[in-house]
Amino acid sequence: MSQEISALQKARYAYQVKLPKDLAHGANVSLVEGKATESAADHDAVKKLFPHTYGLPTVTFKGKDEGKGKALTVGVLLSGGQAPGGHNVIAGLFDGLKSINPASKLFGFLGGPSGLIDGKYVELTAATIDAYRNTGGFDMICSGRTKLEKAEDFEKSRANCEKLGVQAVVIIGGDDSNTNACLLAEYYKAKNVAIQVVGCPKTIDGDLKNDQIEASFGFDTACRVYSELIGNISRDANSARKYWHFVRLMGRSASHITLECALQTHPNVTLIGEEILAKKQTIAEIVATICDSITKRSAAGLNFGVVLVPEGLIEFIPEIKTLIAELNDVLAEHKATFEDFKSTDHKIDFMIGKLCANSAKTYSTLPRSIQTQLIFDRDPHGNVQVSLIETEKLLIELVNLRLRELKAESGYKGKFTSQNHFLGYEGRCAAPSNFDANYCYSLGYGAAALIGAGKTGYMSSIKGLSKPGAEWVAGGVPITMMMNIERRHGSDKPVIQKALVNLDGGPFQELARNRAEWAVATDYVYPGPIQYFGPTEVCDQVTKTLELESK
Amino acid sequence: MSQEISALQKARYAYQVKLPKDLAHGANVSLVEGKATESAADHDAVKKLFPHTYGLPTVTFKGKDEGKGKALTVGVLLSGGQAPGGHNVIAGLFDGLKSINPASKLFGFLGGPSGLIDGKYVELTAATIDAYRNTGGFDMICSGRTKLEKAEDFEKSRANCEKLGVQAVVIIGGDDSNTNACLLAEYYKAKNVAIQVVGCPKTIDGDLKNDQIEASFGFDTACRVYSELIGNISRDANSARKYWHFVRLMGRSASHITLECALQTHPNVTLIGEEILAKKQTIAEIVATICDSITKRSAAGLNFGVVLVPEGLIEFIPEIKTLIAELNDVLAEHKATFEDFKSTDHKIDFMIGKLCANSAKTYSTLPRSIQTQLIFDRDPHGNVQVSLIETEKLLIELVNLRLRELKAESGYKGKFTSQNHFLGYEGRCAAPSNFDANYCYSLGYGAAALIGAGKTGYMSSIKGLSKPGAEWVAGGVPITMMMNIERRHGSDKPVIQKALVNLDGGPFQELARNRAEWAVATDYVYPGPIQYFGPTEVCDQVTKTLELESK
Repeated sequence: MSQEISALQKARYAYQVKLPKDLAHGANVSLVEGKATESAADHDAVKKLFPHTYGLPTVTFKGKDEGKGKALTVGVLLSGGQAPGGHNVIAGLFDGLKSINPASKLFGFLGGPSGLIDGKYVELTAATIDAYRNTGGFDMICSGRTKLEKAEDFEKSRANCEKLGVQAVVIIGGDDSNTNACLLAEYYKAKNVAIQVVGCPKTIDGDLKNDQIEASFGFDTACRVYSELIGNISRDANSARKYWHFVRLMGRSASHITLECALQTHPNVTLIGEEILAKKQTIAEIVATICDSITKRSAAGLNFGVVLVPEGLIEFIPEIKTLIAELNDVLAEHKATFEDFKSTDHKIDFMIGKLCANSAKTYSTLPRSIQTQLIFDRDPHGNVQVSLIETEKLLIELVNLRLRELKAESGYKGKFTSQNHFLGYEGRCAAPSNFDANYCYSLGYGAAALIGAGKTGYMSSIKGLSKPGAEWVAGGVPITMMMNIERRHGSDKPVIQKALVNLDGGPFQELARNRAEWAVATDYVYPGPIQYFGPTEVCDQVTKTLELESK
Repeated sequence: MSQEISALQKARYAYQVKLPKDLAHGANVSLVEGKATESAADHDAVKKLFPHTYGLPTVTFKGKDEGKGKALTVGVLLSGGQAPGGHNVIAGLFDGLKSINPASKLFGFLGGPSGLIDGKYVELTAATIDAYRNTGGFDMICSGRTKLEKAEDFEKSRANCEKLGVQAVVIIGGDDSNTNACLLAEYYKAKNVAIQVVGCPKTIDGDLKNDQIEASFGFDTACRVYSELIGNISRDANSARKYWHFVRLMGRSASHITLECALQTHPNVTLIGEEILAKKQTIAEIVATICDSITKRSAAGLNFGVVLVPEGLIEFIPEIKTLIAELNDVLAEHKATFEDFKSTDHKIDFMIGKLCANSAKTYSTLPRSIQTQLIFDRDPHGNVQVSLIETEKLLIELVNLRLRELKAESGYKGKFTSQNHFLGYEGRCAAPSNFDANYCYSLGYGAAALIGAGKTGYMSSIKGLSKPGAEWVAGGVPITMMMNIERRHGSDKPVIQKALVNLDGGPFQELARNRAEWAVATDYVYPGPIQYFGPTEVCDQVTKTLELESK
């Protein structure tokens, strides 16, 4: 811990988190079982892989005080990227376990799944927990990206748990980490090892979501931080009236963050990867969409604007996906020849000669800086590193080129000057909003209840999130219920279905209804920073995504 | 205005701004005159240029209700870059004028000084003012960068004021804009034109500051937004434990923002331009400072950290200043030869041959991307565009190179992976903090009082800013009092002395005392977002700069 603690962090220690009413008397609850469940798809295949954890019923809690239960010893770990509220999950778990029996113990495995595998841990005391209540970050026990999926690692984890007397592990992570939580639960159940495994849905990306899990934690807070900044940038654009701001937002595999921020701030152009993929849009079409807004606004004297770009954009564009695949093939096949060329020009020309006609055309139209990046910045396997491409700069360059053509072709006479931004690390470790503080604490508290009730292979769940906290319904969902089989790296794997932006869903439809107007008008909304105190309509909002999805 | 207004903006409309007690009964106050004043330096030269506005006394207000005064017609304009609180200055001015006489009128000149010169204006009604109270941005009347300094423009402005019956103009701007406000005041007084001119001290950069003006408005809010984000980034660094984050912060001519943010967040390394200049540090020494922190932390197992870089850094490094001057000379002298070279390599080699030995060495050690940028990205006059250089990326490249050497030379075995950020537009248009909301409103209200009292060539001032609002002392300062003569673009000009970071001052000394510890330890502070409601110790903090300067 730092020696100095900010005034806000101190004040937030005193925040009274709210629990769903069925957990208000403690985590030693009795369960109400729902019906037996099926996986999201591929029932037989998933059932075959998870004979012991498949088909379990969903459960909810019965909210009366059951008195003291058995003391429990539990381990917890954080997996994957940071998300606001992780510390509150742990605090809720701690308090929940203590509510069952004050002699319960909680260990934190350090640095993610590797802490469990390698036996690096710390016992979490009340003093530690108190120092992290309602704070951002994962620094209490840190996270890591080690994949927990091999039997060897399961055995090592078992040994470490047994040494500590840990009878349950809580894995706080995204879709892949929860899939692995279920693999671990199944493995232990199959081997009659008395270690339960419970998951908690974490990710700012918002793509761990389904009928059972209404939202992953951290999405609310991260989107509010990004929307604060987009609002400030938009207000600057509307004040200076001379810049187009291109803002790239974190989120590679889905565009939920971009969509939510757009609904909160009303930018002129919002690109949604899932739509681009569904409509098989080319990069020229995307550039045309942006230029359409620029030229229309310019005609109205408005040579400024805001464009939101999801981080994963170019991986959604079919022609770029094809191009990258071909580049990888050519680089692999002609490595020596390619590297013999001294000048970049020769390398680019050689590459154009080897690509298929369509890809050669796509590659030729890219700005030189991107052409160079695509053939030079390769990962250790020789592959193009898509994540390094600054898509917002690529779009700015292409828009600039297209606007020059439009000056010649049409009556466009505007000035186009741009600024670019990437927002990601600015929001992942923000102190959780009241929503996320309550949601995370409830998830952790619910996980304690599931453990107390002997469950394994479940994800802690809170439903009714768009309603006030007292109406939230806590329970557990069998992880297998969210699974299907997908082809990954050449083999079939059971995975939790990733939630992409649903083009027929409320949030996207809200964007679709308004975007023609937003493209031309200056209709920016300025949400401002997250407020933790003050009027409830300011401090206890839910995301537009959650609001529109619950309608 | 947008069709939708955020919940926070609505709630902020209701915020009750606080006025210094001497303005609490209205702006129709009597004045208490101080002693006659002298300019900051160059007394005779400044006096000669400002015979009618030189030597005036400072004034404060006497806080009792003087009843109704004469109705006033006033114009206001915003000059230069956005800063949080501009709308509140205008709201304070409006309310102050109405408090003197409800029949008073306020016109807003549109788009900065050019609105005054070209006669583009709007009458500001109560409805307009109410829609912008306590909001960020300058979008109510927008700003501009036209310089108001020629007699011809003063005459045009006069004609526009006379047409509207405007008897006083309030110029909200930075040091240059307030210098020009004084030139305008002097011009009108010399010509017996009955138009008063009053200035208000605006700039997020914090460099308009002296014995009379304790802080420019917007600095508080902008630094809080940047510190929120730096805190979030630091917490991410401390959670992921794998990245060094290099954060460049707005502020070209002074490093006040970087210093304030460092005091709020305790990063591992903070670069202060004024110190680098004073110590004549080379870029190699700066890189060594950063590498020292990296290697020490790495030895302690901490391969992550945070570095703050002021936007104007490279202009403070003597060797780079010399290099850029030489590059400009060579490019001017050998334009044709230089452009005849086809390849970048040839151009760079040619350049190295023409530079003096020291500059050639400096240029040779720069990464190629920067070498290229320095000779390709030139402005219309053929000069190197220093502001385009992404200093944080330059430092990352140089640090990477140096660390590779250190691996060979010393025992450094760490991993260095970096992320870069630039924070500027994210904070300039944030809704003003309570401090800035009150300060700006008071500045505007005080400007109305100065106008009512017939003053011209004054800047509205509030003193005692580190104390609670009720203890603030409102008044006016003759602008000439802050002036000296400086050489600009080859001629001597009267200007308001720019406040650079004082290396003997409290804020820098606080950094100097702590930075050795912060370089090695992880002592981050997480200030979190600006809070507008809630505990006073959270919502009504003053900047560390103000706090330490008032000690």
